[in-house]
Amino acid sequence: MAKVAPRPAKLAPKPARAKPAMLAGTERALQIEYAIRDVVVPAKALEAQGHTVLKLNVGDPSAAGFRPPAHMIEALHKAALDNVNGYTASEGDPLLIDAIIRREKRRNKVAYAPGDVNVTNGSGEGIQMLFGSSVNPGDEVLIPGPSYPPYDSLVKFFGGKPVHYRTIESEDWQPDVEDLRRKISKKTKAVCLINPNNPTGALYSRRVVKQFADVVGEHSKQLFMVSDEIYDQMTFDGVQVASKTVAPDVPMVTLNGFSKIYLVPGWRLGHMLWNDPTGSLEQIRLGVTKSSRVRLSVSSIAQRAGVAALDGPQDHIATTNAALKKRRDFAVKRLNEIEGISTAKPDGAFYAFPKLDCLATKGGKKAWKGDKEFVLDFLNTEKVLCVHGSGFGAQYGSGHMRVVLLPDTPILGTAFDRLERFIRARGATA
Amino acid sequence: MAKVAPRPAKLAPKPARAKPAMLAGTERALQIEYAIRDVVVPAKALEAQGHTVLKLNVGDPSAAGFRPPAHMIEALHKAALDNVNGYTASEGDPLLIDAIIRREKRRNKVAYAPGDVNVTNGSGEGIQMLFGSSVNPGDEVLIPGPSYPPYDSLVKFFGGKPVHYRTIESEDWQPDVEDLRRKISKKTKAVCLINPNNPTGALYSRRVVKQFADVVGEHSKQLFMVSDEIYDQMTFDGVQVASKTVAPDVPMVTLNGFSKIYLVPGWRLGHMLWNDPTGSLEQIRLGVTKSSRVRLSVSSIAQRAGVAALDGPQDHIATTNAALKKRRDFAVKRLNEIEGISTAKPDGAFYAFPKLDCLATKGGKKAWKGDKEFVLDFLNTEKVLCVHGSGFGAQYGSGHMRVVLLPDTPILGTAFDRLERFIRARGATA
Repeated sequence: MAKVAPRPAKLAPKPARAKPAMLAGTERALQIEYAIRDVVVPAKALEAQGHTVLKLNVGDPSAAGFRPPAHMIEALHKAALDNVNGYTASEGDPLLIDAIIRREKRRNKVAYAPGDVNVTNGSGEGIQMLFGSSVNPGDEVLIPGPSYPPYDSLVKFFGGKPVHYRTIESEDWQPDVEDLRRKISKKTKAVCLINPNNPTGALYSRRVVKQFADVVGEHSKQLFMVSDEIYDQMTFDGVQVASKTVAPDVPMVTLNGFSKIYLVPGWRLGHMLWNDPTGSLEQIRLGVTKSSRVRLSVSSIAQRAGVAALDGPQDHIATTNAALKKRRDFAVKRLNEIEGISTAKPDGAFYAFPKLDCLATKGGKKAWKGDKEFVLDFLNTEKVLCVHGSGFGAQYGSGHMRVVLLPDTPILGTAFDRLERFIRARGATA
Repeated sequence: MAKVAPRPAKLAPKPARAKPAMLAGTERALQIEYAIRDVVVPAKALEAQGHTVLKLNVGDPSAAGFRPPAHMIEALHKAALDNVNGYTASEGDPLLIDAIIRREKRRNKVAYAPGDVNVTNGSGEGIQMLFGSSVNPGDEVLIPGPSYPPYDSLVKFFGGKPVHYRTIESEDWQPDVEDLRRKISKKTKAVCLINPNNPTGALYSRRVVKQFADVVGEHSKQLFMVSDEIYDQMTFDGVQVASKTVAPDVPMVTLNGFSKIYLVPGWRLGHMLWNDPTGSLEQIRLGVTKSSRVRLSVSSIAQRAGVAALDGPQDHIATTNAALKKRRDFAVKRLNEIEGISTAKPDGAFYAFPKLDCLATKGGKKAWKGDKEFVLDFLNTEKVLCVHGSGFGAQYGSGHMRVVLLPDTPILGTAFDRLERFIRARGATA
């Protein structure tokens, strides 16, 4: 009889700990993709290994050293000292609502009533409350392609279907109004314009905004326009045209905020403006107001600072734009010098959305499967973080990447030198 | 032939302006009811007529003159001056997450890892992101009755069904654990505890919290516990027991924040803590993290102030509680002296939830149809604003009203004198 070694204790059968049941999450939340923040995970892994990562991924002017005007900070401080530390009206502090109305009159020569303004926790909360109050399952929302990711995520969050209309790269990413017209269906509930655009930096002319709004107006019995104007005063050659000024008859919700123009993204302060010429938005507006009540209030002290921001000196805007224009000019020139890269010229915001020509197969095998692989390879090799274009919608974003143009030119120069070296090293220039 | 008067021009048929189509809102948003803010509308109408309204409706300590500690304000100011004005990590500023972990270790002797903390725009955003990530259509959520309205609204917002378990008025509103047990069904996804409670001010003993959590633990393969502890350090006779300390094995999300204890409701700063002993909450937690990404960030400067709040002197807590205890003692005594009113004794937070015995018919016709009519009549007659109990759920809240005990005793005294006069004037005391 063969000797049998005693079974080691660690292999002895033991009552397996029951695999715990995983409680189901929700499809609405699990479907959320946010490319801009998703690429942060591999970047953090590199940092944990001791690498310094040059970050061109997040649209945060503070990270590049831009500062809000001093009088905003003093107004914030004064509000806290004056014990303006309680909840405000859910729709917003009446003082800020009045300041927003004055600003709209001053800059855009348009009139809003206090009931037309909802102050929000950043403009993103405006998108969320608006879609939460307007998108029923199956509704379609038209979104510019490439698109700012929260638009897609939030439409899907509420059971709707995002549909991307084309913006035309060869025309500096202007919207394709005919494509928009073709894509309006009986299910379309809202049509979004982002001007200046994120991620392309495109600024739309008065003529284009008017054409666009006219198409929406033809269908105003079934849908409304969303005009995201958060970068409105951040332009370099042209001047942004507020959609309402060219289309007062179109039911419209304008989204805006303080994050970009007043350089306080971390303060979470935005607002929505309602243009409702026929009353067709009443039910949706009521839904937004009710949604605002359940979250009680926006930051009381940030709202008071917002009043100071709108009513005070605006010098910082010209200074900021001059700095950004220099960076934009540098970036466009330098990016277009790199073999395998070409970019349109952004005229607003602080992004470029260059085409990765180097992805195309030219008589050899591809160095990368697509833009995401390119961006991750670039990150791991050169320690520069950009966001893959497909993260802004595969249909129109693929084959590109978004580059944030906020850092000063020496830093951008370093990033672009590395980009050139990287593409050459992969032999992907020809 | 009879003379026929010419038809007046104004009755002449004219092309009626087409009734504009109203775009459909969403049931999820339109169902939101928020009693605490809804009663503000008639109060504002009175104010517009020149009346002064004594407000006992909103749980905002700032409105009653309570102030945050000075070092919080200085930390806020310093953060803004140091240009901590950009987005933070969506899950929260790591400095605040660490401070929260230290606080939990110090106060509750429990350990959390950084990944167990999500910083939120007030604790309300925590409720919203949590239900958005866990409640699928048809899921039931057990909520204390009477209940804080956002729980109901947000469960319904996501297609779920709120089910109220009884809390026992004659036992100072302690939860009826047997009623909870009976109401757990196969569809129950989460069970909420609010301790100290809003709107009743009840503080639950260690024994009760343990019994409660044990019932949840028996069903931990299908559900988890939500422990709302936002008033945890605001107690008068007893000490609040953090649920995790008595039930470390129960999957649990604890909600907390700075609005109440640190007296900055307008700053919008809260947090969620995950206790996930078996990993059953992984999917739900991922959904919350994704939801946090799409809204980018919580206030960067408020988060830095939160670090100062947790790590700095805590003297203001004892001072605040001593002031509130005085008001509580006064209110309980005075309310119980009023014929037609009786109240349990709250031992935490800053609410009383008295019973309107005067609503009962006693050999005559009712003076009011119910608590909402009572509250509105009281408002219009005596210019004192409370919230009707049915606004906290008809099943267990009807026949009561919520009184905020934040104003100082002379003001509370005036309000209660008017209440007594009002009930007597209606002949509803006998």
